[in-house]
Amino acid sequence: MSVVVSGLQRAYDEVRQYSLALAEPLSAEDQGVQSMPDASPTKWHLAHTTWFFETVVLRPHARAYRSFDDRYAYLFNSYYEALGPRHARPQRGVLTRPGLQEVQAYRRHVDEAISALLASADDETLAIVEPLITLGLHHEQQHQELILTDILHAFSCNPLLPAYRARPTDASRKPIESLPLEWLRQPGGIVEIGHDGNGFCFDNEGPRHEYLLRPFEMANRLVTCGEYAAFIADGGYARPEFWLSDGWSMVQREGWTAPIYWMRADDAGQGNWRVFGLSGVHALDPDAPVSNLSFYEAAAYAEWAGARLPTEFEWEAAFGAPGIEQMMGHVWQWTRSSYDPYPGFRPLPGVAAEYNGKFMVGQQVLRGGSIATPPGHTRSTYRNFFPPAARWQFTGVRLVRDY
Amino acid sequence: MSVVVSGLQRAYDEVRQYSLALAEPLSAEDQGVQSMPDASPTKWHLAHTTWFFETVVLRPHARAYRSFDDRYAYLFNSYYEALGPRHARPQRGVLTRPGLQEVQAYRRHVDEAISALLASADDETLAIVEPLITLGLHHEQQHQELILTDILHAFSCNPLLPAYRARPTDASRKPIESLPLEWLRQPGGIVEIGHDGNGFCFDNEGPRHEYLLRPFEMANRLVTCGEYAAFIADGGYARPEFWLSDGWSMVQREGWTAPIYWMRADDAGQGNWRVFGLSGVHALDPDAPVSNLSFYEAAAYAEWAGARLPTEFEWEAAFGAPGIEQMMGHVWQWTRSSYDPYPGFRPLPGVAAEYNGKFMVGQQVLRGGSIATPPGHTRSTYRNFFPPAARWQFTGVRLVRDY
Amino acid sequence: MSVVVSGLQRAYDEVRQYSLALAEPLSAEDQGVQSMPDASPTKWHLAHTTWFFETVVLRPHARAYRSFDDRYAYLFNSYYEALGPRHARPQRGVLTRPGLQEVQAYRRHVDEAISALLASADDETLAIVEPLITLGLHHEQQHQELILTDILHAFSCNPLLPAYRARPTDASRKPIESLPLEWLRQPGGIVEIGHDGNGFCFDNEGPRHEYLLRPFEMANRLVTCGEYAAFIADGGYARPEFWLSDGWSMVQREGWTAPIYWMRADDAGQGNWRVFGLSGVHALDPDAPVSNLSFYEAAAYAEWAGARLPTEFEWEAAFGAPGIEQMMGHVWQWTRSSYDPYPGFRPLPGVAAEYNGKFMVGQQVLRGGSIATPPGHTRSTYRNFFPPAARWQFTGVRLVRDY
Amino acid sequence: MSVVVSGLQRAYDEVRQYSLALAEPLSAEDQGVQSMPDASPTKWHLAHTTWFFETVVLRPHARAYRSFDDRYAYLFNSYYEALGPRHARPQRGVLTRPGLQEVQAYRRHVDEAISALLASADDETLAIVEPLITLGLHHEQQHQELILTDILHAFSCNPLLPAYRARPTDASRKPIESLPLEWLRQPGGIVEIGHDGNGFCFDNEGPRHEYLLRPFEMANRLVTCGEYAAFIADGGYARPEFWLSDGWSMVQREGWTAPIYWMRADDAGQGNWRVFGLSGVHALDPDAPVSNLSFYEAAAYAEWAGARLPTEFEWEAAFGAPGIEQMMGHVWQWTRSSYDPYPGFRPLPGVAAEYNGKFMVGQQVLRGGSIATPPGHTRSTYRNFFPPAARWQFTGVRLVRDY
Repeated sequence: MSVVVSGLQRAYDEVRQYSLALAEPLSAEDQGVQSMPDASPTKWHLAHTTWFFETVVLRPHARAYRSFDDRYAYLFNSYYEALGPRHARPQRGVLTRPGLQEVQAYRRHVDEAISALLASADDETLAIVEPLITLGLHHEQQHQELILTDILHAFSCNPLLPAYRARPTDASRKPIESLPLEWLRQPGGIVEIGHDGNGFCFDNEGPRHEYLLRPFEMANRLVTCGEYAAFIADGGYARPEFWLSDGWSMVQREGWTAPIYWMRADDAGQGNWRVFGLSGVHALDPDAPVSNLSFYEAAAYAEWAGARLPTEFEWEAAFGAPGIEQMMGHVWQWTRSSYDPYPGFRPLPGVAAEYNGKFMVGQQVLRGGSIATPPGHTRSTYRNFFPPAARWQFTGVRLVRDY
Repeated sequence: MSVVVSGLQRAYDEVRQYSLALAEPLSAEDQGVQSMPDASPTKWHLAHTTWFFETVVLRPHARAYRSFDDRYAYLFNSYYEALGPRHARPQRGVLTRPGLQEVQAYRRHVDEAISALLASADDETLAIVEPLITLGLHHEQQHQELILTDILHAFSCNPLLPAYRARPTDASRKPIESLPLEWLRQPGGIVEIGHDGNGFCFDNEGPRHEYLLRPFEMANRLVTCGEYAAFIADGGYARPEFWLSDGWSMVQREGWTAPIYWMRADDAGQGNWRVFGLSGVHALDPDAPVSNLSFYEAAAYAEWAGARLPTEFEWEAAFGAPGIEQMMGHVWQWTRSSYDPYPGFRPLPGVAAEYNGKFMVGQQVLRGGSIATPPGHTRSTYRNFFPPAARWQFTGVRLVRDY
Repeated sequence: MSVVVSGLQRAYDEVRQYSLALAEPLSAEDQGVQSMPDASPTKWHLAHTTWFFETVVLRPHARAYRSFDDRYAYLFNSYYEALGPRHARPQRGVLTRPGLQEVQAYRRHVDEAISALLASADDETLAIVEPLITLGLHHEQQHQELILTDILHAFSCNPLLPAYRARPTDASRKPIESLPLEWLRQPGGIVEIGHDGNGFCFDNEGPRHEYLLRPFEMANRLVTCGEYAAFIADGGYARPEFWLSDGWSMVQREGWTAPIYWMRADDAGQGNWRVFGLSGVHALDPDAPVSNLSFYEAAAYAEWAGARLPTEFEWEAAFGAPGIEQMMGHVWQWTRSSYDPYPGFRPLPGVAAEYNGKFMVGQQVLRGGSIATPPGHTRSTYRNFFPPAARWQFTGVRLVRDY
Repeated sequence: MSVVVSGLQRAYDEVRQYSLALAEPLSAEDQGVQSMPDASPTKWHLAHTTWFFETVVLRPHARAYRSFDDRYAYLFNSYYEALGPRHARPQRGVLTRPGLQEVQAYRRHVDEAISALLASADDETLAIVEPLITLGLHHEQQHQELILTDILHAFSCNPLLPAYRARPTDASRKPIESLPLEWLRQPGGIVEIGHDGNGFCFDNEGPRHEYLLRPFEMANRLVTCGEYAAFIADGGYARPEFWLSDGWSMVQREGWTAPIYWMRADDAGQGNWRVFGLSGVHALDPDAPVSNLSFYEAAAYAEWAGARLPTEFEWEAAFGAPGIEQMMGHVWQWTRSSYDPYPGFRPLPGVAAEYNGKFMVGQQVLRGGSIATPPGHTRSTYRNFFPPAARWQFTGVRLVRDY
């Protein structure tokens, strides 16, 4: 077996195993629930990522492959129009069959077929399937993050407020840094934006191109829960002057008065917020980065704070600059950039054409990565995107200012 | 232990056991699913019926009772306003916790407490709890029927169309009777309507009162699938002249062209209907009573057939008349009677006041009982009710005519 | 010209003229507005009632009739399926063309054709058209009431709260009677229900038939605004025990806290209600019959008052009994009877078949007549009907009790 | 009177008069209709633009000003949160009062007060009100375009399909140019974007800044109806590969098969399109620029044509380049740019802060100007914006390509 093959097989095993590890704390019942149309059951994520390998790699390129169940092509397609009709997205929670054990068997079936393909593929085949398998692994990592954000939402709808996992004990737990806020000047000018072609990237990260930036200054850290609580205490959710028009409509129609997972303590006093998260309900940590904000909330906070959100170009240009911290590993950071194509953008050929390009309208770009992003998945050129009202992701705020 | 107590305990055991037997063919995942706001998960039915005993019998009347989990009072209340707030009905499917095993433990906990209460109750207590326990058992039987209708709906939303149970083999299966249609004259006059007080009944079955009926003639049997297919073949779903106005709106808005569980065979030929049911998909049996109709469809069929639906008074008066068959055990029969209170009706006192009376608007009365009705549950005075658009119950048609 | 013809022509002229008189205080702009799907513009009422004569009388029976504009058949059909497609009901407000003047010309065109038809018709034709014209006049009277209730709703949506007409001066105005409440015993027994065939009636008022009634006692007058204010002051809109389940859902979903046209005075004090009506906003008159209630509110009030709503049979049986006042001319009275067909009911033949029968589900019967009912239109057997949530009609409460 | 004042008064008179001229062909009934939440009645536009002058100029700066009716502040505010509550946007059609004549009197009242203010203002006051009045005039011009697009939508909902105006006769009518398609190279590089400060501009057109562009080539003219018909004939509305995901959802949910105002001729043959417009229904002119497209349709067409939409920067850079025609005066041109703030953007101070900035999310930029844009209103830096699903504006397509 070549080095390429063995490396790929190892990566494959790791990523696939990690999905199962994420599902481990969840019962079969937990893994079947869908709490809103935008979220999906864990079981569906486990099956859909498997379907991706089956559909993109095995069916076209593994001659002897026998499908596990032909009906899964319909059940576990997410949004690929070119691959025919599919089960309605808001109805994924109704799929109690196939059961979790059957989905796990499906995963094993596909895993074995991938291994067999890698073990036997000639160089020509390998040259074709290697980028597809790699794409499939990055695809699965994206769903790994969704497994966590989706189950958190489902649990938040349950009055019992179950914890996905125990809170790390004080000994093992990395304390949140308490960083004094500093504004760090960035020079702007003509910068290179987009992926440089070394290693994997999604099609939406290219083409790499020059972009002309004004100078600006960026906060050295993320906005904290304590700072956000001050915004609320100052009437932030009741003062339209801070909000974009669509955001203010949302505040009024949905009755937003705080981030989605914040709960007021019984005595209604300020400063007594409790926050629901993967390890259940805990007192608000004022130094922790604020999370699970919509773009509307992020933009309103920035306006209140006398600053603004960075463009995705500013964010990328400042990445790695001295003193700029918390760029990855805490929360995705809403940018002031709509999710538009880069100059010269063309989608991938084939099925993967539908991966990114067709979503380039009505969404905002997020940069960075969160506590739920799998290790090694994100990078400085990574363009995540969600609609401006989305609150169920681990999304927060980094501020910038003109100077 | 008195005869009363031992009889009650035996009835209790039988009914409670039957619920578990109904759930037996279903996985934990199956038991958690809610496919529409009007249906509930099996697990919720198992818990809610238990909550009823806990709330109505144990909390007020079993001095030493320790609740299994105080939060269940909120989770498993269905619609009792007097008992405080409750988890939203359309959100029952999100309750992956408590898990099925925990709900089963909850059932055992309450069963033991009921047994202990019965074993130790003095006569005065017994006089109080006996009718409440009896009410709870009839309540649980109602949910037993819903367990079947609700899971059938959930399975119908799954493209795999799973079968709840295997089809009875030809040997064991009672064949559907093929009865020639006959019209049997009923004399009318002043008849006694409502329960006579011997044995259990729901409050909505009384008071017993006299009702003046014209003579009429009633079909000796139910409308069959074959007859209903002829209605469809004659353009039944495309001809507004047969339909009530609200029904016709429904036909057009929802695109109804056949009963909810009927599927056209691939070749689109007439007479090739397939029907989904508890034992999966099978060819339409032309002699079987047509089922899962809305009131609108039932009324349109009757209009097409040159007949009409019986009033609930006609149905009750004809019950037991010579030659009238299939009154129970096949499908509930839509009547032309709105679900109004009987003269002099007063709801039960206490919590049970909300059991029936508050639903007496916007619904139609159904009479009889279905294949899903537990043995011994229904009777000739039983008033079932559903909104006129409901299709997920085992509901069919009995015709009458004036003469 | 025969006596029949001249009498019919006179009735025709009177009714047609009355519609125009009702529209007189309204500008062309006012006459075009539709404030909700259930209400229609005045102009539409003027045109639709004309369309009825054109469609039912002139097209089939006036040989030489030339239609005013063939497209009106589509524009001004309300709900007659047998007459082909029609403009969507919620979109009537968009029809700024034809303009009011054109609709008035349409009325004159049809009026002249009717007169010409009557003047020239032979006896055979007359025998056919006389009942159709009579039906058309009663139909137009129904829309005369709707002209008032619909414009009142439209004006209530305008923050300027315009008055349809000036308030009668004290001299000319008949003061509301202040009647002490009395309960008057009614014997029940077998009573005759339905129209006796002398004079015009709608098809839903027959066949006349016997009905068996228990004895009951009926309030001598309607429930007053003062009494209803006491219900509100006692927490009526916050206590679910008084409400039907659907009604309570409505209260919560829509935020009902008082009748639709009641407004709290600024100081929020009790007893300071102001009420919007056809003559604008005035202080609540405690002796006036409460109006514009939904069935849900009427039923909740009755429950609170320890009484109940009458069945339509009780109402009809008590009509004319000594001491029973305010049966007509104030508000329509919600009954506890669903709008079901009478025994032996068959709709009218032809187009008129769709007049009543197809609405016999999901509605409640109202009896009596209101301040907006045209003189001579209603009678003791008249069955008005609306869905239980309807609040924009002049609808109130008469109580009964068992004894 | 100074030259500034007389020039401003003349501009004021011209713009105000033009609004009335646009309303002239419409009856009072026409001027009151609202056919969807996004459109407004003509009368409302006439009143709202007047309210703007009253609120922004007269109330703060004309000492002796007496308001016409204090309640209009509530009725005719569009979306200014800082100015207090307002009548709900989707309910503007219900405002039959004030009537059209009263609104016209309101206009005269404000016009006279503005003239009086201008005639008497000292230099200091003039320095303040001149930019506000100028803003008010450009604001009114925006509503002049909406008067036409909104009434066209209302008329399109009327089955009579009324014409707003007669079609120009052949003699007077400027024929649509039939231009051969050419692709004209544009060099890109660092270009100046945004308004240069000479003359009026909206705040969203600045600050002027440098932008780095790749070279591209632009079509010399707009996409024609004939070309768009070819897209439809090639299955454009049935092939998801051309569509953005949100666009494809729209196509399926709304059943789009052609532009909003295109109608298939009866024989259903291709090439027989008829198009509804301000002068009624006419045969499709294959050389006319296609109009009333959503961004989704524009983008799908571009994809089908093997090209793309320009960014707003490309559009602005190519403006005025040799050979580029039809940039203004036909249709607004959808760009591939989301409506994001320019670098360094700050909203105007005071009330005008809500004019543009708060809408900068979820919208696409359009450039150019249409047949409905008042003379002199638009310019090369003008940034129009609408949500991507909007179809009721005069919106079309200009193509570009990379080279």
